[in-house]
Amino acid sequence: MPYELHYWPMIQGRGEFVRLALEQAGADYVDVARLPHEDGGGIDAMMERLDAEPVRAPFAPPFLKDGDLVIGQTANILLYLGPRLGLVGASEADRIWTHQIQLTIADMVTEAHDTHHPVANGLYYEEQKPEALRRAAEFRENRLPKFLGWFERVLARNPAGPRHLVGDALSTADLSLFQLVDGLRYAFPTATARALEATPRVAALVQTVGRLPRVAAYLASERRLAFSENGVFRRYAELDG
Amino acid sequence: MPYELHYWPMIQGRGEFVRLALEQAGADYVDVARLPHEDGGGIDAMMERLDAEPVRAPFAPPFLKDGDLVIGQTANILLYLGPRLGLVGASEADRIWTHQIQLTIADMVTEAHDTHHPVANGLYYEEQKPEALRRAAEFRENRLPKFLGWFERVLARNPAGPRHLVGDALSTADLSLFQLVDGLRYAFPTATARALEATPRVAALVQTVGRLPRVAAYLASERRLAFSENGVFRRYAELDG
Repeated sequence: MPYELHYWPMIQGRGEFVRLALEQAGADYVDVARLPHEDGGGIDAMMERLDAEPVRAPFAPPFLKDGDLVIGQTANILLYLGPRLGLVGASEADRIWTHQIQLTIADMVTEAHDTHHPVANGLYYEEQKPEALRRAAEFRENRLPKFLGWFERVLARNPAGPRHLVGDALSTADLSLFQLVDGLRYAFPTATARALEATPRVAALVQTVGRLPRVAAYLASERRLAFSENGVFRRYAELDG
Repeated sequence: MPYELHYWPMIQGRGEFVRLALEQAGADYVDVARLPHEDGGGIDAMMERLDAEPVRAPFAPPFLKDGDLVIGQTANILLYLGPRLGLVGASEADRIWTHQIQLTIADMVTEAHDTHHPVANGLYYEEQKPEALRRAAEFRENRLPKFLGWFERVLARNPAGPRHLVGDALSTADLSLFQLVDGLRYAFPTATARALEATPRVAALVQTVGRLPRVAAYLASERRLAFSENGVFRRYAELDG
């Protein structure tokens, strides 16, 4: 039975971290909300399905269904999928470290999102623009270099070498770091280029992941949605610099 | 060898979620940064220790040391401790659901924090007060009822009954929900009381957890720090209502 991914059908968003892992593993999965309406696709059907979940309904999309099991929270989905997709080390120490990196990526995703929505998710960007200008400046000057610097350090100190975040094999964390940096490059091209100059190992890892045959094929396919001003990473020229 | 918890010594903060689990389990642990300076306590020693960590240094406190293993990210620490402290179910389904709830609690903690720091953690509250007023209003009116409503639903739909979030036994998620609501009551007494009227199962769980003998003894001890305007949950009258 294929994995079912349930996520907003028009954006990469947080669902993209799950999509990338499924794609790189060549997993059998259905991106349910992107199906035609008559096959159960669409946002309304997804939200009805979430609400109708009898017992363990997640707080919000994305969620994954694997048979009877329903799993929410992006990092938690990847924690579940990691061993099944061969995208995490076998030892508990490797798994807990991979997940720690995953949660730090999730923190940075939230901070990147909040640059354009610093007051409320329910308001438009235009309704919180003065606040966004302040928060984005802080993000560019302090948080972006600090987070990327931490990933650089993780790579530099990996005893197995800087080609992967954990050990000597590709993990969900590598794939998610690719997606994070790809999003940052879209949203903050100037600030991200500057930060990556100081973090060459991060830049190299991102390039390597983007060229993995399955990842590259996915990125070139119609399954890969474009970045847009509806997603987590949004390009507003006034927020970059 | 006792567990070592490393966290800011003057606040409850995110470290408190770990402290509560260790306390309820009667675990042998040392709250290292709260030791006297000559025994390795203090903030400077903690940050030096974090920076000197040769390989897998977390992004920020709290972090836990268990022998050679160093674990960061609050929810990740609890994921690691859950089975060791008897604070999570045995099945993978229970563990992944408990962790999903834990991550949703973590999301709400971040949102509660950002009510007083909507622009930058590195600025004082007084430097971002107009933004804080807007974000806090949004939090009180939308996010607080939405999150507590989700926990209420989790309790209402638990097939084992509403006494616990997962199954019929105490878990790290129950303890963390206690801490979350305790913090919300401190920071937003009026708005939280209003939200809890609509979520009686959450209110009952929080009361039950607070009366567990070990939790109650901990809360009455000197080990329990007071809430303050240096922590995650801060009481500024103008942000409540």
